[in-house]
Amino acid sequence: MVETYVFGHKSPDSDSITSSLVMTNLEHELGNADAKAYRLGNINKETEFILNYLGMEAPELLEGVEDGADVILVDHNSPAESVDNLENANILKVVDHHKLALETSYPLFLRFEPVGCTETILCKLYEENGVEITKEIATLMLSAIISDTLLLKSPTTTEDDKLAVAKLAEIAGIDYEEYGLEMLKAGTDLSSFSIDE
Amino acid sequence: MVETYVFGHKSPDSDSITSSLVMTNLEHELGNADAKAYRLGNINKETEFILNYLGMEAPELLEGVEDGADVILVDHNSPAESVDNLENANILKVVDHHKLALETSYPLFLRFEPVGCTETILCKLYEENGVEITKEIATLMLSAIISDTLLLKSPTTTEDDKLAVAKLAEIAGIDYEEYGLEMLKAGTDLSSFSIDE
Ligand SMILES: [Mn+2]
Ligand SMILES: [Mn+2]
Ligand SMILES: [Mn+2]
Ligand SMILES: [Mn+2]
Repeated sequence: MVETYVFGHKSPDSDSITSSLVMTNLEHELGNADAKAYRLGNINKETEFILNYLGMEAPELLEGVEDGADVILVDHNSPAESVDNLENANILKVVDHHKLALETSYPLFLRFEPVGCTETILCKLYEENGVEITKEIATLMLSAIISDTLLLKSPTTTEDDKLAVAKLAEIAGIDYEEYGLEMLKAGTDLSSFSIDE
Repeated sequence: MVETYVFGHKSPDSDSITSSLVMTNLEHELGNADAKAYRLGNINKETEFILNYLGMEAPELLEGVEDGADVILVDHNSPAESVDNLENANILKVVDHHKLALETSYPLFLRFEPVGCTETILCKLYEENGVEITKEIATLMLSAIISDTLLLKSPTTTEDDKLAVAKLAEIAGIDYEEYGLEMLKAGTDLSSFSIDE
């Protein structure tokens, strides 16, 4: 099988992990059955909280890709933060909200917006393509936006992020502030320290 | 007035000129009244034919931009093909169908697709944003797609280009094959040669 590898950056955060899952689902819905989500490192405590909340598995670890492999990058575009051997891969698409640090020798699909989170862009892509945002997908998207924007309080937060959160919280049936605080708290990982530290 | 300079590549072709006009109109419709179309060089015979057909003026010539100027690039992204002093400008958006040859130190809006013409992407952007494609805009878009794809016969032609041409020809009320042949013929510029050459 010729696979399409979908992944976020090394030292993955919640946006990278959830966006790889959400982008993979979008590819499936658009007819690319060969898309599969991967991660480029261990998931953190916050992401663990999100996946546990949904009863989902983390994507498989990806060590590198073969020459000519089809890949889709989410939440990053810099080769330095990406998979080993990216220079010999065939990048089909990039969906990201970071500065531009990639060059290619071929045309490709790029969707970048200067918003707070990749999932805010993916939320638009679902709408534009008429793909249903299920409760599970909405929860993944919502969690990442809360994570990247620190509950819509970071200076990178835009009007688009706020609109996405309002919409996704309704679909997910989640009180986003309550859920978000619990999620961010899980990410601080205090549980692994004893009371004396 | 703080202007947003909108332009295609140096030695402009019909896609670069029409896309600067069409993108500028989109910006106006989306609320950016300060967008203005420019060109980075002389227009060619084919583009002259298109503008004459519509009774439109060519965009103003742009020699360079001041430090910090807001710019929008269409039909190119390589600094080598762009305006002088691009490295000190503030690139707001890029809409293009070429390989990626740009780096930035800040996030921005990028919409790239591996299709035959920038106007095919702009056609989608109009639809996604619910902006009306007038007869004039449709004729500009259609002309550029015919130009870049050589009447949908170039190897770079995609299904998306064909769909756009069908749709735009209907809005423009144009027999695209007849119009396209006349337009391409005007571009070969045989009229400037005498019969003896
Ligand atoms: Mn990230
Ligand atoms: Mn992110
Ligand atoms: Mn061009
Ligand atoms: Mn072009």
